[in-house]
Amino acid sequence: MNDMTQSPEMLISAMAAKARAACARLMQVGDNQKARGLELAAQALRDHTDAICRANGQDMDNAASNGLSAALLDRLRLDTGRIEGTAAGVEQVAHLPNPLGEIIDESTRPNGMILQRKRVPLGVIGIIYESRPNVTADAAALCMRAGNAAILRGGSEAIESNRAIHAAMVEGLEAAGLPGDTIQLVPTTDRAAVGAMLRAAGLIDLIVPRGGKSLVARVQDEARVPVLAHLDGMNTSYVHSSANPDMARELVVNSKMRRTGICGATETILFDKGFTAKHQVIAALLDAGCAVRGDEAIQAIDARVTAAKDEDWDTEYLDAVVSIAQVDDIDSALNHISAHSSGHTDAIIAEDEEAIERFFNGVDSAIVMLNASTQFADGGEFGLGAEIGISTGRLHARGPVALEGLTTYKWIVRGSGQTRA
Amino acid sequence: MNDMTQSPEMLISAMAAKARAACARLMQVGDNQKARGLELAAQALRDHTDAICRANGQDMDNAASNGLSAALLDRLRLDTGRIEGTAAGVEQVAHLPNPLGEIIDESTRPNGMILQRKRVPLGVIGIIYESRPNVTADAAALCMRAGNAAILRGGSEAIESNRAIHAAMVEGLEAAGLPGDTIQLVPTTDRAAVGAMLRAAGLIDLIVPRGGKSLVARVQDEARVPVLAHLDGMNTSYVHSSANPDMARELVVNSKMRRTGICGATETILFDKGFTAKHQVIAALLDAGCAVRGDEAIQAIDARVTAAKDEDWDTEYLDAVVSIAQVDDIDSALNHISAHSSGHTDAIIAEDEEAIERFFNGVDSAIVMLNASTQFADGGEFGLGAEIGISTGRLHARGPVALEGLTTYKWIVRGSGQTRA
Repeated sequence: MNDMTQSPEMLISAMAAKARAACARLMQVGDNQKARGLELAAQALRDHTDAICRANGQDMDNAASNGLSAALLDRLRLDTGRIEGTAAGVEQVAHLPNPLGEIIDESTRPNGMILQRKRVPLGVIGIIYESRPNVTADAAALCMRAGNAAILRGGSEAIESNRAIHAAMVEGLEAAGLPGDTIQLVPTTDRAAVGAMLRAAGLIDLIVPRGGKSLVARVQDEARVPVLAHLDGMNTSYVHSSANPDMARELVVNSKMRRTGICGATETILFDKGFTAKHQVIAALLDAGCAVRGDEAIQAIDARVTAAKDEDWDTEYLDAVVSIAQVDDIDSALNHISAHSSGHTDAIIAEDEEAIERFFNGVDSAIVMLNASTQFADGGEFGLGAEIGISTGRLHARGPVALEGLTTYKWIVRGSGQTRA
Repeated sequence: MNDMTQSPEMLISAMAAKARAACARLMQVGDNQKARGLELAAQALRDHTDAICRANGQDMDNAASNGLSAALLDRLRLDTGRIEGTAAGVEQVAHLPNPLGEIIDESTRPNGMILQRKRVPLGVIGIIYESRPNVTADAAALCMRAGNAAILRGGSEAIESNRAIHAAMVEGLEAAGLPGDTIQLVPTTDRAAVGAMLRAAGLIDLIVPRGGKSLVARVQDEARVPVLAHLDGMNTSYVHSSANPDMARELVVNSKMRRTGICGATETILFDKGFTAKHQVIAALLDAGCAVRGDEAIQAIDARVTAAKDEDWDTEYLDAVVSIAQVDDIDSALNHISAHSSGHTDAIIAEDEEAIERFFNGVDSAIVMLNASTQFADGGEFGLGAEIGISTGRLHARGPVALEGLTTYKWIVRGSGQTRA
């Protein structure tokens, strides 16, 4: 595997063939054994905590001498607590319900043939990620539990940590009699290997990028393999004239300020002209430390509001900054969202049933919310367990994607000798 | 729209913007109105039969003087009967169950938030097709019924026929108060417009190619938009030792010979070593006019069998030719299928329950059949109504794809003021 004379295409093609063979072996394995493999993998992570910390120390030393930022160093850093958290996450995946085998629907044809659609694994999944070494365990666990093989390509700055975590995971799976090739780590830090993964149509069934916007943009731009991702979380909270003022204040402040750096954070607020408590909500945001950029109507409400520029309506701040516009009515709100939303999560705060239904029908985003904080846009909060990612694409899976999104179905047809006329 | 100074990118981008606006208007329209639009479109096709035939006459004259083959001319040709068939097909789509609005699942979170996944339209769908003008009506009807807008790009040899059919369809939709831009026909025969559609990621949500292998291959190769298609139907019928000999003979002959040119036709037969009636099945195929190419064991059974070459095991004949191999057991059969199947449809003929279950689990194709003709691999035969295509891809929709495959879902979250801690 470490033969560097191989081309990146040969390397990925060989890994994909091993992954496909691992999938075929996993098809013969019951769900209990897969869950057991993850429990043993969690145990192996705990058992090898010292070795993982030592490997991480190497990465941290290299990263520091390469001048990585404090934020990146923090993402890269592992300690006993973080490794325990990762092991506990793998155990959680082991305890989720079996995503496979469900009969999605069934019918009997007039000629007596019985048709079923049965949920089966998706296949070979490529994960391309950045500094956080815990993704090596998290993503691999989710893929495997749904019967898939994973090809993992982490950030070069985390290569030693990833190798140590990968070795522990494989040890656990093999102890349960599962194929070690279920989880493969791309052995080279050569960036060309990422390109080879992105072009591996037919060999890799799905690519999931986990990381910042520049990584996701590169993957979406170059991939010939289907990609599950979101680029932006340009989320809107629209406060209708019928909104409860206190609820609106609490929801807007939470949606924007609870954690400003997550993709579910609200970035734009639309106030209906008829909502009379705008000043209270704006004051609450300002008092919470949020910079407010508004159109002329909003600037007139509080002197601390600065003028929004055109690009503000399309900016995902991921920071304590918000853009606020006043809209004439729900049609104007829907038009604004249609023009500026990234299709991730948009919310209405309202009591009027007609307005609520119009919003639910008219907003074409992965998640549409009523009277709730957009910060809930998260697989765990949706009760799905761990998520592999959030998708703003329209095919296959939308919004938070967990185990079900890592499956597909096949048609099973049971006949008794039927021929077609 | 016919301004030829536009670049293909500008043309497709402008059409996609109109299509998106049509989708938004369709969201506000009930299912009855959509069905009514299709009924009126079917009526308009009937009312304009003469005009459509005249337009088709122009295409036929041009095609004949351009030296098109008799087979292509037959695909292109329209007459009163074919137009009536197309109109009846549009009416059938009008009478299918509404594919939208279904609540796929629902849950209530511990904090009281109610989550639903609701089935909604997919968006803007590009159809790229060849000589058959009826696709203009069929595909447009399926897309529209599921709330989508269609951008249609037919073969240049059928442009006048397509324009006439398109005009009738739009007349019907508009008579029902539906936006005419729901169905747009690319006005130019410039091949660069196809390239612009294939690159229109974010503007077009899904491309469906309808036509021969070279069209599908080009689309799959160039597209940056998700594609729903199958390239090959390299289908296998495996006759297990437990198979009923008479049933095996009838199924194999039907699977291969009923219509040899369809993607569900069997191309390879595997005989288990222990199946003792091989000679009867082979004789029945030969007697039905099928050329048989076999491995050494099969050649020894009947003198009319010729030697199969390596490439025979990967050849989709679409003709009265079949390749037959003898396999030692079900594992050898599964290995052969895994190596050579295109993932479309594979069948086992057997009575032994253990072998059947191993086959169902071990064959990773879109359709897996027991004791039935592979020629049933078709949306209509599966009770889905008209199909937009058959997919051998693994994401979103697999096997025959009908109305449901032209939808996606959105998450609807109903809160009562919940903030995230």
